[in-house]
Amino acid sequence: MSETAESPSEKRIPGAGEGAGRMERIVNLAKRRGLIFPSSEIYGGLNSCWDYGPIGVELKRNVKEAWWREMVWTRGDIVGLDCSILMHPRVWEASGHVAGFTDPMIDCKTCKSRFRADHLAQSDCPLEKGKRPGECKGELTDARQFNLMFKTFMGAVEEDASVVFLRPETAQGMFVNFESVLATQRRKLPFGIAQIGKSFRNEITPGNFTYRTREFEQMEMEFFVKPGEEQHWYEYWKKERLDWYGRLGIRPENLRLREHEPDELAHYARGCADVEYQFPFGWSELEGIASRTDFDLKQHAEWSGQSLSYFDEETRERFVPFVVEPAAGADRATLAFLVDAYDEDEVDGEVRAVLRLHPRLAPVKAAVLPLLRKGGQPEKAQEILATLRPHFPVQYDQAGSIGRRYRRQDEIGTPFAITVDHQTMEDGTVTLRDRDKTTQERIHESELLADLLRRIHG
Amino acid sequence: MSETAESPSEKRIPGAGEGAGRMERIVNLAKRRGLIFPSSEIYGGLNSCWDYGPIGVELKRNVKEAWWREMVWTRGDIVGLDCSILMHPRVWEASGHVAGFTDPMIDCKTCKSRFRADHLAQSDCPLEKGKRPGECKGELTDARQFNLMFKTFMGAVEEDASVVFLRPETAQGMFVNFESVLATQRRKLPFGIAQIGKSFRNEITPGNFTYRTREFEQMEMEFFVKPGEEQHWYEYWKKERLDWYGRLGIRPENLRLREHEPDELAHYARGCADVEYQFPFGWSELEGIASRTDFDLKQHAEWSGQSLSYFDEETRERFVPFVVEPAAGADRATLAFLVDAYDEDEVDGEVRAVLRLHPRLAPVKAAVLPLLRKGGQPEKAQEILATLRPHFPVQYDQAGSIGRRYRRQDEIGTPFAITVDHQTMEDGTVTLRDRDKTTQERIHESELLADLLRRIHG
Repeated sequence: MSETAESPSEKRIPGAGEGAGRMERIVNLAKRRGLIFPSSEIYGGLNSCWDYGPIGVELKRNVKEAWWREMVWTRGDIVGLDCSILMHPRVWEASGHVAGFTDPMIDCKTCKSRFRADHLAQSDCPLEKGKRPGECKGELTDARQFNLMFKTFMGAVEEDASVVFLRPETAQGMFVNFESVLATQRRKLPFGIAQIGKSFRNEITPGNFTYRTREFEQMEMEFFVKPGEEQHWYEYWKKERLDWYGRLGIRPENLRLREHEPDELAHYARGCADVEYQFPFGWSELEGIASRTDFDLKQHAEWSGQSLSYFDEETRERFVPFVVEPAAGADRATLAFLVDAYDEDEVDGEVRAVLRLHPRLAPVKAAVLPLLRKGGQPEKAQEILATLRPHFPVQYDQAGSIGRRYRRQDEIGTPFAITVDHQTMEDGTVTLRDRDKTTQERIHESELLADLLRRIHG
Repeated sequence: MSETAESPSEKRIPGAGEGAGRMERIVNLAKRRGLIFPSSEIYGGLNSCWDYGPIGVELKRNVKEAWWREMVWTRGDIVGLDCSILMHPRVWEASGHVAGFTDPMIDCKTCKSRFRADHLAQSDCPLEKGKRPGECKGELTDARQFNLMFKTFMGAVEEDASVVFLRPETAQGMFVNFESVLATQRRKLPFGIAQIGKSFRNEITPGNFTYRTREFEQMEMEFFVKPGEEQHWYEYWKKERLDWYGRLGIRPENLRLREHEPDELAHYARGCADVEYQFPFGWSELEGIASRTDFDLKQHAEWSGQSLSYFDEETRERFVPFVVEPAAGADRATLAFLVDAYDEDEVDGEVRAVLRLHPRLAPVKAAVLPLLRKGGQPEKAQEILATLRPHFPVQYDQAGSIGRRYRRQDEIGTPFAITVDHQTMEDGTVTLRDRDKTTQERIHESELLADLLRRIHG
């Protein structure tokens, strides 16, 4: 249930001109180089929906892959899951979403604008007031609760009995499958279940590029522990998840952990903290780590009539496990990696944009560039290209000066550029250029693949 | 628009008792070993929705990864894309889905059952008739068109203006982004745009396990070519896509290409063929390859008012490209690989189930098994485990006889079992067992990772 409420720290910073300008340049680059396009743009776009272009799709795939590798493959105490987006409607009654997943809404009777009541309450803030178009001062309706779940009808008849919801989070999939995973995977506590997938929330005020959207992808993990051990694991996961972003290259000064105030906590929660990133539009949540007690399993046990408990072979006790949940947004993480990687410097009096992405996250791992379009260099470059392609995305480019070609790759964050030149044709060595150091070294083509794999995956 | 109509060949085979029994055993294995669970099972399930469990999620990930690697990374003439599921409603007017993506439905006035009119027409078929519960003979309504798109409301108000659809196919994302890809990726014809993602169709008669579901994942590619070259590329992609399944291990006798009859073709299509797999429930479509002319781009150009064309630098001509589309179902492919891999043989008078999956598709690549729970063997096994884990899913198992442990791994298709024994503690070699040959060879632990990577990825 992370991402439910707008984090108090996620506010646009008044007067953050430089920050806003930086964000605009990133959005422009993302569109110009095929990272992120507005959805259905030829039809004027669809509010808050975005498409990942040829470069962006690889970036987001790498973010999700890094999460899955780390959480599911490498640890050994977490298993994966991939649930359908459409689930039984009672899931959302048990979880509390049908009754409580709402925002209070207020309409202006004069200009018909619609506001979140909790935003209007902060009417001292000039920016919040500024959202009322034309500064209309018309009479306001009382606040009404508006459920954020998208609903649709399954089957041929549009009636109440056929209403299903697009899941507003992936987490419930882990809870309703807890028993099936336990029965089939021979797991002992503590263990986790992880899932990556799309969720949908009918947000009233989406915004900030891909940060707050109505359709988004989550990377959530439910870690089941013995009651009494939850505080240990809560501390563990806070540190672990904060570190993950750092290990993949986010600058420490742009990351922080914000512990929720007691009055921000759900009634069942023992603790909740956000991993926040300093976007140009302010500190904003990337991921929530929540200590959720046995609330979710008990709710589903009650609503389904099934026993969702764990039998401890050693102590011969049966109990309902407690849960610690790190819930991250895949689009938010992708945006944070993109924003943090974005850099500008000057080359020959021109401003050059460069994405200093971790090699593991870089959409294209290497570019293969023949220095000249003759002397067998293009053919040799194509040959090298063919040996690398099955292993990671590689680009070939022979158009324009070598400096211009380097800069094209810098803009999409390609960490390595391989140049085939005169010497290559003589001794089989190529130059390998590092995006960040802009240094070059010669390396034999037969060592390229192994060398690059080592540089990318460590 | 593949998967639209039920393929004439995809019919349950009356009297296919053996086939049906085989399918049932596969469904049972899938549930028992954590490949595929019914969705929301603790609430009685949700019709036609399925969840991939810890083993199944890796299998499906591998199928999608194999497709992406082959289509996007290795070839070099296809780029990726990842569009939002919610798109502008006019997309579906332009594509013809709002007006034409319908099934004709008939109700029985007496028993209130609902049927597809085109099924009832085949009333000579005892199985189709058998679908009317209780063989009711009540009066039938006229056929009415029922649109298969799921609709929902975006924004706070449920009114016509806020209706959006869950995409019934991913393909339209490639057409509406054609211009953006062209403008940002410096591509020359022929080139393709590929996407993997969820689609939704409100099917009246889902069924056959994960084969026909209302929520499903597609792997679609639109290949844009010069008009006049479409027949060449149509032939090319039919062969290429059929071969792909074979290269990943499907037996040739269970694969075929079925060319559509002229009266099955859409009015704009130059040709359409299905890659079919022989499931226990009959020959059924895995993928459709369609030669679609310039129909889609022209429709979107007309409805959006944008020019969707291509300028050929060499001939100095501007024209609308033709499209050849291979459109595969990720869940169907996954099911075909699972069904084809399922085998049974007898070991010590017991029937043993084994999934003979291609190593690249196998959910778990290797199991590390200490022969004994003493003598340092478990510790050594854990050490080996730690070196393999960052690279692919690996399992550790020390419970029960070694034969039983092998069989557990056979059931989920693990191609390699590594046993740590007495000799390992002396000379550092382990035994490597091959799932299919059931032969063992000794290999030094220092060579394991490279050896396994070679066996998996070739």
